[in-house]
Amino acid sequence: MLPYTLIEKKQAGKALTREEWEFFIFGFLSKEIPDYQMSAMLMAIYFQGLEDDEISNLIDIVIKSGKRIHFKNKDIFYADKHSTGGVGDKISLILAPLAAATGKVRVPMISGRALGHSGGTLDKLESIPGFRTNLTLEEFQKQTDKIGCALIGQTDDICPADRALYALRDVTATVRSIPLICISILSKKIAEGIQGLVLDVKSGNGAFMQKPEDAELLAKKLKYFGEANGLKVTPVITDMNQPLGQAVGNWLEVREAIDVLHGGGPQCVRDLSLLLTEEMILLANPQETRQSIRRELETLLDNDIAFNKFLEIAEAQGGDISVLKNPDSYPKSAYVAEVTADEAGTITAIDTYGLGLDAIDLGAGRRKYTDTIDPKAGMLVYVSIGDKISSGDLVVTLFSDNEEAITIKAAEIGERFVLNHTL
Amino acid sequence: MLPYTLIEKKQAGKALTREEWEFFIFGFLSKEIPDYQMSAMLMAIYFQGLEDDEISNLIDIVIKSGKRIHFKNKDIFYADKHSTGGVGDKISLILAPLAAATGKVRVPMISGRALGHSGGTLDKLESIPGFRTNLTLEEFQKQTDKIGCALIGQTDDICPADRALYALRDVTATVRSIPLICISILSKKIAEGIQGLVLDVKSGNGAFMQKPEDAELLAKKLKYFGEANGLKVTPVITDMNQPLGQAVGNWLEVREAIDVLHGGGPQCVRDLSLLLTEEMILLANPQETRQSIRRELETLLDNDIAFNKFLEIAEAQGGDISVLKNPDSYPKSAYVAEVTADEAGTITAIDTYGLGLDAIDLGAGRRKYTDTIDPKAGMLVYVSIGDKISSGDLVVTLFSDNEEAITIKAAEIGERFVLNHTL
Repeated sequence: MLPYTLIEKKQAGKALTREEWEFFIFGFLSKEIPDYQMSAMLMAIYFQGLEDDEISNLIDIVIKSGKRIHFKNKDIFYADKHSTGGVGDKISLILAPLAAATGKVRVPMISGRALGHSGGTLDKLESIPGFRTNLTLEEFQKQTDKIGCALIGQTDDICPADRALYALRDVTATVRSIPLICISILSKKIAEGIQGLVLDVKSGNGAFMQKPEDAELLAKKLKYFGEANGLKVTPVITDMNQPLGQAVGNWLEVREAIDVLHGGGPQCVRDLSLLLTEEMILLANPQETRQSIRRELETLLDNDIAFNKFLEIAEAQGGDISVLKNPDSYPKSAYVAEVTADEAGTITAIDTYGLGLDAIDLGAGRRKYTDTIDPKAGMLVYVSIGDKISSGDLVVTLFSDNEEAITIKAAEIGERFVLNHTL
Repeated sequence: MLPYTLIEKKQAGKALTREEWEFFIFGFLSKEIPDYQMSAMLMAIYFQGLEDDEISNLIDIVIKSGKRIHFKNKDIFYADKHSTGGVGDKISLILAPLAAATGKVRVPMISGRALGHSGGTLDKLESIPGFRTNLTLEEFQKQTDKIGCALIGQTDDICPADRALYALRDVTATVRSIPLICISILSKKIAEGIQGLVLDVKSGNGAFMQKPEDAELLAKKLKYFGEANGLKVTPVITDMNQPLGQAVGNWLEVREAIDVLHGGGPQCVRDLSLLLTEEMILLANPQETRQSIRRELETLLDNDIAFNKFLEIAEAQGGDISVLKNPDSYPKSAYVAEVTADEAGTITAIDTYGLGLDAIDLGAGRRKYTDTIDPKAGMLVYVSIGDKISSGDLVVTLFSDNEEAITIKAAEIGERFVLNHTL
């Protein structure tokens, strides 16, 4: 078997056998197949796709490249939520403690870092001083079973093939491939040892799937292959044509999540958190009604019970909960810029992808792997699609320690907001 | 400018600007852009193609990555021939001395090594003991002007970007791309300092362009971009549905070329050598008639004048001309196997690509860059499409120092020849 002929086979639109994929993936992991052959293969997959059998085989091969968690308690329903990524998506920070607070599910959540224009739950958690996202798998399992939830990052033990593939896809423009996204998401989630998975498939100009039909196809494929691997899966397609909530940036988003966990925060963030958590509880207890679940979840938010679960999780993972209790004590950005509207009109579109890139430039994300993140950096966006604004209205506040970046962004960011015509 | 966004741009089917290609190619050469990003780009080009402006820019950028030869004598017509590659194609070994023997053109020929299933002129020349293919550019120019022809391999000075790209394309299944082939061929030929180029575009199951329409498109593009760069170009599309002549393998092909240079050899090899040389002389002297050129070339072959020019070239480059004068003195393969027909019928098709791979396995080519070539290895194929054969007729003789390989091939090679039905 030659790597070259396998690339050629995929390039010609043919399906590779299980043995061929094993040879290619394990050869890549052992460095016998070099990066440049794998990146050529990934680009060939981007154009030619993968057949269903190939996707199933690859999910299994990627799982077998590492360890698979097996929770011992078979009476408990372990569940997770995954979002395909967007701008201002802090739902995991709310859903995980909220779901755990019901006592009906346990949430062993493995999250990723910021990717391209999109934020990452892991970076948000790490904006909490002391919060350890690198628990061992043993600690992770123990904490999940003790307090109902643990929040960590991908480890070397879980799906190392996915890690290696992801790093390469990220720099070779091969992230946006539905079969590769399926394999990456499902292999990690199955290896987590969960039984149920709620998928938030984002659609719109701030999502990886910009076209609704792509989001629908991805949702369908994720459900199909998740169920084929014994998972209960509920995909939900949600809008990413504007940032989710006001806050974009790591600590700013944690702070907004705290507001929601106190029963407040932007309505759209509260609504989506309730919806996705409801779907998760329904996966565990299909006999319950949506109404009763919703009432319970609202109570858990409004009475600070979910917030207290969040504190419990943070404390268990070494986080400084004093800043969570008193967010105003968090360090401030050196520079703050308020951007106001210079004309009146109705907001008809928002360049959400662009705002995600702006947040990176303010310090909230990485242009290169070696970049460090400023947890304080980012923006608060005060307008939504459909809002009528007057000249002089506050549109967005920027936060950064980088004077040059904030000056440039303050001058340019107005263009991300489109008035009175479509984008 | 980010390599990632340029890959994404090409992936989306958009054209890159000259500045973007310079950034990408020179970044790759300086190793700032890693192999894996270039191979992703090459695969994106494979699927999305390149626009005409991009091809022109890339030819120029690749030339500028190295030196360009400028012959001083402006009254002389410098010309070269290039074949897109096939099985048993030894035409360059005949055409180069034959054209030079006319005194009407000078032939500064830079050739390549065996590639995939296809042989390489350079490997054939190196089967002549002592033959130096690594002349300096200065020696190359001097010899061309002194005796009318020099035959060398690609040097580090000429189009280093092509060298680097080619090595990567060869292992990532991105050789078979018409725009990339155009850029690779024309950049090197223009850098050689020639004014005229005859292109032998092979079409058929032993060619890189298996479909006639692809061969035609490649021929058209090569002519267009060659002429846009000031070259006179004559493309000729020729058949590669069976090996060219009987000999496949380095020394075996040199020996067959010697036969043709003595006025003998297989008719098809003589015919194609005459045709392509005639086209080259016509490029130099368009006022001459084909008939008069043809008569002159036939005389040069039949009276050993072209053969003597070949000896002169070989001697100038350190080759042992005693074996050229007396080919029977060349070392013999340890194993020889004669394969006969086990049924009667008409040869309707030959798996030429397969025969090329068989020759490699006998020792005539490389599976990996580090493999060494056995110059004696290969085969003589005695049948052509349309031939009627009887059971027991000799079909092919194999030559190898590898007993295991020749045993396997002797048992299997009959399947490459299809009787009474199409392939």
